[in-house]
Amino acid sequence: MELIKVSANSRTSAVAGAIAGVIRDHNHADVQAIGAGAVNQAVKALILATNYLRNDGIEICCVPEFVEVEIEDKVRTAIRLVVEPR
Amino acid sequence: MELIKVSANSRTSAVAGAIAGVIRDHNHADVQAIGAGAVNQAVKALILATNYLRNDGIEICCVPEFVEVEIEDKVRTAIRLVVEPR
Repeated sequence: MELIKVSANSRTSAVAGAIAGVIRDHNHADVQAIGAGAVNQAVKALILATNYLRNDGIEICCVPEFVEVEIEDKVRTAIRLVVEPR
Repeated sequence: MELIKVSANSRTSAVAGAIAGVIRDHNHADVQAIGAGAVNQAVKALILATNYLRNDGIEICCVPEFVEVEIEDKVRTAIRLVVEPR
């Protein structure tokens, strides 16, 4: 399963399209963000994706979790939004 | 229903306790944040609350939405996390 990585500079509409596409294909999407700016973009993208999918009759909800990720040999704490149909 | 307002300076454990308490009492919690720092704190608090409630056998999930709020006569866009048992 592809992980959707979001940065503080990600375009919310592009991320939203990715979330909606992965949900349509797999009924599950993992969205990962590190840092406040990235988390904010991820949540905004999720709102847009929720609206896109609602138009198709799909209601999604999200369970956030912490995940440890290794970036350039350093362990950082990321936030992962686990998205699924309700 | 009480609205749980989160700022960038909110303590995540305090917000998490509030979310868990409101879910236990009402089966529904609305968590509101304005700005990236506040949204980040809200999501982190939601992760903690998810873990608290999981220990009680309650699985929650969240649907985020935009809301317009008026603060000091200015309209601002807030993010509201609507939290309910799955």
